[in-house]
Amino acid sequence: MAPKITRPFCAQLGKCLQQVTSGQATQLNAGCVVTQKQMVNLTIVNSTFKVFPAGALQSQVAAFSTSASRKSSVSQPPARLLQPLTVPNKILMGPGPSNAYPRVLAAGSLPLIGHLQTEFYEIMDDIKAGIQYLFQTENEWTFAISGTGMAAMEAAAVNLLEVGDVALVGVNGFWGARLAEIAERNGSVAQRIEKPMGQVLSLEEIEQGLKEHKPKIVFLTYGESSGGTAQPLKGVGELCHKYGALLMVDSVAIVGGPYTNSVFCDFPGIDVLYTGAQKVLGSPPSISPISFSQRARDKIASRKTKVRSFYFDAAELANYWGCDEGPRRYHHTGMISGNYTLREGLAEIAEKGLEKSWEQHSTCSQLLYDGLEKLGLELLVKDKSIRNPCVTVIKVPEGVDAKAVSDYAMDKHQTEIAGGFGYLAGKVWRIGVMGYNCTPERVDQTLAVLKEALDLHWKRN
Amino acid sequence: MAPKITRPFCAQLGKCLQQVTSGQATQLNAGCVVTQKQMVNLTIVNSTFKVFPAGALQSQVAAFSTSASRKSSVSQPPARLLQPLTVPNKILMGPGPSNAYPRVLAAGSLPLIGHLQTEFYEIMDDIKAGIQYLFQTENEWTFAISGTGMAAMEAAAVNLLEVGDVALVGVNGFWGARLAEIAERNGSVAQRIEKPMGQVLSLEEIEQGLKEHKPKIVFLTYGESSGGTAQPLKGVGELCHKYGALLMVDSVAIVGGPYTNSVFCDFPGIDVLYTGAQKVLGSPPSISPISFSQRARDKIASRKTKVRSFYFDAAELANYWGCDEGPRRYHHTGMISGNYTLREGLAEIAEKGLEKSWEQHSTCSQLLYDGLEKLGLELLVKDKSIRNPCVTVIKVPEGVDAKAVSDYAMDKHQTEIAGGFGYLAGKVWRIGVMGYNCTPERVDQTLAVLKEALDLHWKRN
Repeated sequence: MAPKITRPFCAQLGKCLQQVTSGQATQLNAGCVVTQKQMVNLTIVNSTFKVFPAGALQSQVAAFSTSASRKSSVSQPPARLLQPLTVPNKILMGPGPSNAYPRVLAAGSLPLIGHLQTEFYEIMDDIKAGIQYLFQTENEWTFAISGTGMAAMEAAAVNLLEVGDVALVGVNGFWGARLAEIAERNGSVAQRIEKPMGQVLSLEEIEQGLKEHKPKIVFLTYGESSGGTAQPLKGVGELCHKYGALLMVDSVAIVGGPYTNSVFCDFPGIDVLYTGAQKVLGSPPSISPISFSQRARDKIASRKTKVRSFYFDAAELANYWGCDEGPRRYHHTGMISGNYTLREGLAEIAEKGLEKSWEQHSTCSQLLYDGLEKLGLELLVKDKSIRNPCVTVIKVPEGVDAKAVSDYAMDKHQTEIAGGFGYLAGKVWRIGVMGYNCTPERVDQTLAVLKEALDLHWKRN
Repeated sequence: MAPKITRPFCAQLGKCLQQVTSGQATQLNAGCVVTQKQMVNLTIVNSTFKVFPAGALQSQVAAFSTSASRKSSVSQPPARLLQPLTVPNKILMGPGPSNAYPRVLAAGSLPLIGHLQTEFYEIMDDIKAGIQYLFQTENEWTFAISGTGMAAMEAAAVNLLEVGDVALVGVNGFWGARLAEIAERNGSVAQRIEKPMGQVLSLEEIEQGLKEHKPKIVFLTYGESSGGTAQPLKGVGELCHKYGALLMVDSVAIVGGPYTNSVFCDFPGIDVLYTGAQKVLGSPPSISPISFSQRARDKIASRKTKVRSFYFDAAELANYWGCDEGPRRYHHTGMISGNYTLREGLAEIAEKGLEKSWEQHSTCSQLLYDGLEKLGLELLVKDKSIRNPCVTVIKVPEGVDAKAVSDYAMDKHQTEIAGGFGYLAGKVWRIGVMGYNCTPERVDQTLAVLKEALDLHWKRN
């Protein structure tokens, strides 16, 4: 039933709407009684009209709004934005974001400068050098994507893959599945090698896939945050190159963590590597490190078609980041503050030294494993050599409500203990020990919270 | 000619490399004389080997690196990252980024929380409400893209356009040209209506394009930062819909500025509208507001193929932002700090009120016009009714070195006065008066700097 709105209402429109939105009135005037929901919709008379039931009403209201003063036709600011922004302090022990380093948070409030100013180029150069160090590479095309880790994944895929190109995708968790979807949306073909979460791909399985599908690229997740695995990469690059494929590796939830002399160093055949800011680097998710080998650049240079995304076009980005000979061209407006914070995350690891970072993650993950064992808990990944030291996946014991434990940790101790992904939901917890949170104290604290929750929620026989 | 490397060198690898990289040595041992360039490449023995001239050498070095201690093979952290991050204070009076509001910068250093936690969803809801207010719309699909304004442009285009779809693109500056390129990379067809910078498109020209090319979408830049124009939008939406096209509008360098009762309100036919954070909103470039009308959603729902980008998929993002009925699914890791800062930029305008914001931009742009006239300068856009109040384009007088003036302003007063884009380079300056910088004091200050520079660099007859 359409509400009737009579002409005299028009003059009072602004005032009445204010009364309605503030809850002081549910009636506009004697001739116009409408429900609360319908009246709220009057605040949008100049835009969509979408829930007015009668067409006749729409034209009436439009007529009113035209004759009403301009001022009164502007909708009121949302009350929720007039409240101050409050952010709780939490201990983020899930698969990420992890807590940020204090110096990183401080950098987030530095004044803005222009994205084409010399001082900003210098910060970009700091970032490039920091990523080269983190990845242990001298790849010239080493920079950051102005997007999250997911954006870096998409950038890697759409630059290397053309329509019809085949990608061989290791799917042992969330990230392989996502890459396959991105490849298919790009018009490429994804051939999946599926493994349960918690397992990794063998060289034999990869070689069989290479023989069978003759892919242009092979994708592997170095650190799986859903299954808690560290994919062995030794020899994989050479194998891919032997079959004419490039190797693309996701290292978001791992790089800077395991004792491997870093990825490019131990695994020289990687052609595209990317990571995120919010894990070992202890920075807000914002811009994301990526690096392309000469082989990858050759593949991009020989494309028959332009990269489908301008925003993610690696050659354009390499120029913007000063990675080629030419003068830097404007590509997009760099995320100024995101550059500051990533720079500081990289500086933290440079000051500490990679070896120290690897040692800390090795020590703390071992402390966590020992503590979990003492609590009588089992890990999803039995084989220690393929565990991701940054994200540990723990089996929920029979009869325990996984969510009740996570909720207790959050509600009582503001500590995040994450649940499982996909078919592991309710069956595992995930604990991340990374970057700023990679200290024995944080591990002990998290184990104590978990113990307290289990004492309440695990009725042992 | 391949350098010879003898076995004893292996034990000293780390030390020698340190000497070489620090410039202390150009010779490794008596049996191994190589050029500086070749020796630098030894620092990356474990990664690419890319410039070693002989295959035999590669295997030799590989053998060395295996037998060398792990520690010594890690390259040193970059010296530049061991220096503290320093950021100068600048007055950003170019076309953006503009200086950020103090409350916005403060928000940039708040602690991180998880992207799937209740408190973060509440901040996302604040942002949605703030964008609906800024755009004066109740479009349900109103959220932010985790990328800069350029990313929002790409998101708008790739969601609405399929392969073969025709886009009619108004090109009167940088942004139309960019959108056309994005459309073409997407496999769509861009039909350009070209106009010189400083001019706008007429309804007649748009109608002719609609008749001739039968486009699926029409793209216009509401506020051109390269030409300083405000494209009239009255009646354009209705015209597009009459010919079965949707209207996509870039409002990055303008929204919140001109006295128009905001875009969706005065121009109800807009189907996709987006903006950036670093202009009127006085926030760091990070996440970018976007809004889709029901018509746009219908077009997306009727696509024959999936959106080519997963990262920019509007339906997935709408779910992640809680804009649909379903439970929120993980899509990507939201830029936590970027959400904080945009929230505060939107809160600033909500507290002030849109009317006040429009009034300030109107007043300050008029002050700027008056001051420039007093200095004897001319604007590129003569017709005041099509001037973008946020970005003013000023003709460089005959005989004046544009760059010398900008450089003086920056070097002497840390004030950014931007140059021209494309064929206007060297021929115009661009002054942005937006958001936090939209005060009479900032305008006066900028005019004083410009006067001082002109007194030095303009030899009047």
